Amino acid sequence: MMETLLRRCQIRSQIVRECIAEFLGLYIAVLIGSGAAAQVVTSRGTHGDYLTIQLGSALGAVFGIFVARGVSGAHLNPVYSLSLCVLGRHPWKKLPLYSLSHLVGAFLGAATVYLQYYGKISTVFILILILSFNEYAIQTFSGGELLVAGPNATAGIFCSYPADHLSFWGGLVDQVVATALFLLCCVALEDQRNGPLPDGLHPVLVGALILTMGVSMGSNCGFPLNPARDLGPRLFTFVAGWGEEVFKAGGGWWWVPIVAPFVGGLLGTLTYELLIEAHHQTTPQSPQQEQEAVELEEVVFLKPETFYWVITVISLMPVLEAGEEASLAIL
Amino acid sequence: MMETLLRRCQIRSQIVRECIAEFLGLYIAVLIGSGAAAQVVTSRGTHGDYLTIQLGSALGAVFGIFVARGVSGAHLNPVYSLSLCVLGRHPWKKLPLYSLSHLVGAFLGAATVYLQYYGKISTVFILILILSFNEYAIQTFSGGELLVAGPNATAGIFCSYPADHLSFWGGLVDQVVATALFLLCCVALEDQRNGPLPDGLHPVLVGALILTMGVSMGSNCGFPLNPARDLGPRLFTFVAGWGEEVFKAGGGWWWVPIVAPFVGGLLGTLTYELLIEAHHQTTPQSPQQEQEAVELEEVVFLKPETFYWVITVISLMPVLEAGEEASLAIL
Amino acid sequence: MMETLLRRCQIRSQIVRECIAEFLGLYIAVLIGSGAAAQVVTSRGTHGDYLTIQLGSALGAVFGIFVARGVSGAHLNPVYSLSLCVLGRHPWKKLPLYSLSHLVGAFLGAATVYLQYYGKISTVFILILILSFNEYAIQTFSGGELLVAGPNATAGIFCSYPADHLSFWGGLVDQVVATALFLLCCVALEDQRNGPLPDGLHPVLVGALILTMGVSMGSNCGFPLNPARDLGPRLFTFVAGWGEEVFKAGGGWWWVPIVAPFVGGLLGTLTYELLIEAHHQTTPQSPQQEQEAVELEEVVFLKPETFYWVITVISLMPVLEAGEEASLAIL
Amino acid sequence: MMETLLRRCQIRSQIVRECIAEFLGLYIAVLIGSGAAAQVVTSRGTHGDYLTIQLGSALGAVFGIFVARGVSGAHLNPVYSLSLCVLGRHPWKKLPLYSLSHLVGAFLGAATVYLQYYGKISTVFILILILSFNEYAIQTFSGGELLVAGPNATAGIFCSYPADHLSFWGGLVDQVVATALFLLCCVALEDQRNGPLPDGLHPVLVGALILTMGVSMGSNCGFPLNPARDLGPRLFTFVAGWGEEVFKAGGGWWWVPIVAPFVGGLLGTLTYELLIEAHHQTTPQSPQQEQEAVELEEVVFLKPETFYWVITVISLMPVLEAGEEASLAIL
Repeated sequence: MMETLLRRCQIRSQIVRECIAEFLGLYIAVLIGSGAAAQVVTSRGTHGDYLTIQLGSALGAVFGIFVARGVSGAHLNPVYSLSLCVLGRHPWKKLPLYSLSHLVGAFLGAATVYLQYYGKISTVFILILILSFNEYAIQTFSGGELLVAGPNATAGIFCSYPADHLSFWGGLVDQVVATALFLLCCVALEDQRNGPLPDGLHPVLVGALILTMGVSMGSNCGFPLNPARDLGPRLFTFVAGWGEEVFKAGGGWWWVPIVAPFVGGLLGTLTYELLIEAHHQTTPQSPQQEQEAVELEEVVFLKPETFYWVITVISLMPVLEAGEEASLAIL
Repeated sequence: MMETLLRRCQIRSQIVRECIAEFLGLYIAVLIGSGAAAQVVTSRGTHGDYLTIQLGSALGAVFGIFVARGVSGAHLNPVYSLSLCVLGRHPWKKLPLYSLSHLVGAFLGAATVYLQYYGKISTVFILILILSFNEYAIQTFSGGELLVAGPNATAGIFCSYPADHLSFWGGLVDQVVATALFLLCCVALEDQRNGPLPDGLHPVLVGALILTMGVSMGSNCGFPLNPARDLGPRLFTFVAGWGEEVFKAGGGWWWVPIVAPFVGGLLGTLTYELLIEAHHQTTPQSPQQEQEAVELEEVVFLKPETFYWVITVISLMPVLEAGEEASLAIL
Repeated sequence: MMETLLRRCQIRSQIVRECIAEFLGLYIAVLIGSGAAAQVVTSRGTHGDYLTIQLGSALGAVFGIFVARGVSGAHLNPVYSLSLCVLGRHPWKKLPLYSLSHLVGAFLGAATVYLQYYGKISTVFILILILSFNEYAIQTFSGGELLVAGPNATAGIFCSYPADHLSFWGGLVDQVVATALFLLCCVALEDQRNGPLPDGLHPVLVGALILTMGVSMGSNCGFPLNPARDLGPRLFTFVAGWGEEVFKAGGGWWWVPIVAPFVGGLLGTLTYELLIEAHHQTTPQSPQQEQEAVELEEVVFLKPETFYWVITVISLMPVLEAGEEASLAIL
Repeated sequence: MMETLLRRCQIRSQIVRECIAEFLGLYIAVLIGSGAAAQVVTSRGTHGDYLTIQLGSALGAVFGIFVARGVSGAHLNPVYSLSLCVLGRHPWKKLPLYSLSHLVGAFLGAATVYLQYYGKISTVFILILILSFNEYAIQTFSGGELLVAGPNATAGIFCSYPADHLSFWGGLVDQVVATALFLLCCVALEDQRNGPLPDGLHPVLVGALILTMGVSMGSNCGFPLNPARDLGPRLFTFVAGWGEEVFKAGGGWWWVPIVAPFVGGLLGTLTYELLIEAHHQTTPQSPQQEQEAVELEEVVFLKPETFYWVITVISLMPVLEAGEEASLAIL
């Protein structure tokens, strides 16, 4: 009976299946990750600490990936989808659909956490209102008790805000470096020619990578790394009562965790491709190519070129600082 | 000699073997999990903290599963057994026997922890009394020092009580969401078509999932997730001296961790089945079915239907709130 | 050259190789485990906490097992060797040699930790003295600053002492329960018919099991579980300056972590064998045996018998309490 | 297009590829490891604690190894390269190139962490100046606010300094013991004849090993274990403004984490080779060699010889103490 019911619900369209999987995967990751933050903030540290929040983010990603990996490959991040598109391993036309699925998943994940901790009838209406695109009613839910900044702030449960000591430009650099590192390692874990990986270990390692980001680059601005995971919950907090402050806080910080990860992600992906993956491409394809003369001239020629790449990648980051005074003058 | 002895003790009945394995598996899980809580509570935090309690729960499940997995599949949870029955992967007639084994295992696991920390001759009598169903003597053991609420409360070592700030209805929603997430991920990990998993990794991942629940949804009411694991130790605390208060506390909270997990578990199982598993059923069975026309009408027809399911699942939760005022009025 | 050198040092005797491996394995486990405790005690909690000590114990066992597993199977614990002997999977005549190797490994592991934290010339002499069995000189090293009890106690770095609140008999029960659980899970992990395990995962799971013991049964008396790991370091602290107090403390506690693990270990091993392993012995050996009638009478006969075993195992523990008053009267 | 671009950048020289991989691997390990320390120090403990720093070091190594393992085997440590050279498993002529790559990677990793936390235009100049070997300009950047010692010290983020209570000689012994243990376990994990290991598990276990060192031997002097990982960041802090104090601190401590790991690494490697690996060399090579008489004389002859080695290795450490008074007199 159940079998028959399930078969009747079967979707044959590959892209619809993939979007549902991406949606559900990020929904789970955000539900767990934001839940871990909400638990520590609302219990004022008695039910967890900084480490359990990072564990929550990491384990959320692990199980989000396990849910989606067989259907869509479990990108769960528009930056990762973009990287694969740039490398020619994912069709460009799927990028907007995947990104939209991520955004919806992150939005509803945040909504579910809100429901668990601030459970009110109003949430039902909010969801209905959003689904019917009624822009008018949104403002009316902005209660005074949902604060973005200060000791009772709760907006940080859902999306990232910069630490007080962080300059605008410093936060941007921080995001670019962090996402570059993140994507570099993600692409390395996917690189079968670098070394095989037992099948079930991959999602666990991505989780470990997110824990890594949390313990090593989480203090400046909460390591967003994922534009959808930041924008979706931010949109939710906007409509759920925290109001316009979620976009105004930190000097209009909100667009940084959307733009910086794309820049950093491409930087990290290219760094790995140029420093590691580009060089073992011949091994499985053409063993005869290996046998042809390793022209010494070419080695000599390429060697400085590659080191030029290394220096460029490293140097690119400080160069960005040049605009610091300019941007500070504007803001 | 040992070999011969063991062979003489051999049981051929499959169902008896399975019940023993389920009993022993949950006995171990509760012994470790409640032991971790007891250690932190009785040492007043010097020998562990919130994280070690969650680690104890998670690792208890890991080793409970390792002990039972080869014989019965290591359900260790009536909700999981029910989900498999609903999906047609487990015979319905085994469900009550499995659930009873879980209940006995959890009861005796709690009894062993009690023995380690409050080791008294009386425990022997209690066990004998329970086994002979002598209802009369139970009340006489209720000493004053075994408290359910307040700073010296110890009942929370064994089973869940809601946090003070939590409304009755909020706790119910919390339980439903948590168990839905838990079962969704459990079913996903079992789904071989979603992706293969090295054999020994499965129990470890279920343990990681329980740790996940602890760090992301543990602060409201201690994430029961498992009716037997909550009711068994609660019955034990009832007979061991905490008395009727274990059923009265939290406004008659005790039935919520029994009913809510079943509701949430079915919700989570169905969500996974409808959003993910239903759609890759053809892949390994009938590749010719794939080749037949992907009728666009059907895709168009099914697409909104599926999204309807997503919305329904998400919306179901807030709808439950409607009864909040009503229930508050009654209690 | 190195190859030739190594080949010249090759030992052909299997038993000598195994004893060296067992020695080195437990040496590493104690060096890491006691090192973790020493780090927290001597830094007064700034470089670690209760959890890092447990992680140290667990990871020490992991790497001790990785070092020894290929040669001797990495028992690293006389109790585990005894269990295998009882089950007929290890020759009895090797038991004393293995146990002695464990004792020497634990002794020298403690000595190396002592060297790192209290590095003094005297250690050299102590080692030499011990090796030449000069019993006389040992007493002269007993300085006053090496304390067994009180806030500045350091003896607990090396071996276990019972918590103040623990009665003598309660500690004994605690040890028996803990080692029973430990061995039950160890034997389960080894049981290939219960379920296969990837080869490298086994040592990691044993480490996880020790972490489990640490977070769930570590507060009463520091979960010794291993007679050699407790007696070896205790002997070292005796000769290294803590003096006779290491044997007198806790009302002559020292023999409990030697005797109780053997009792608990056998109890746990037999529990697993009788409840789980005895019943799947036919599966891989004789499928025709399965086909022969599952005689219902026998099932009915065995069913209560097995539950009798369960009850016996559980009940055995409280029965031990009977001697509590007697023992308290004596001590 | 991307494919073509990448193929044009391909380097055919094996040694250049390997050096780039070693560079990138240690760059990532230091970026993550120092990032974790920086996060805790600069947030004054609100975004992590001692355990998260150790997790950062461990996970940094894990992902550094995943990035480099397919190309160069991911040594990431001159001591490990040296050990392989001594064992005849790595060509001696590659050792200086590998070590230089490690040094550059660690230097730039520290520079990137500095950029994230102290992001200033000056960093660009520093990098340029270093690359053009302009020794003069370095001193001018020494600001007063970058302190090596005291409560506001930040130099410890990048490289190791001894704890106040540690004597010079005690720190040296601590380093030798720690690196000996580290290399012993590293070599054991690589020893295929000791036991197989799933491919993707190896980097994770090395990470666990580094966590082990952190929780068991990290309090005395921060477990350098890796000369390049210590010297590279120290050079960076020297040029980035902490000044000469980074070499003067701790009584000229800086050379200890460079020399001691080499001594300890060789000690640990030889210990494993002599106690374990030397003795299972025949098993896969020559089964007939096994059948030839196990000459009892030889066993008797070799047995004390091997134990002599054990004692020598253990005794070597305390012998080092002899120089303690002498060194204290000089410093």
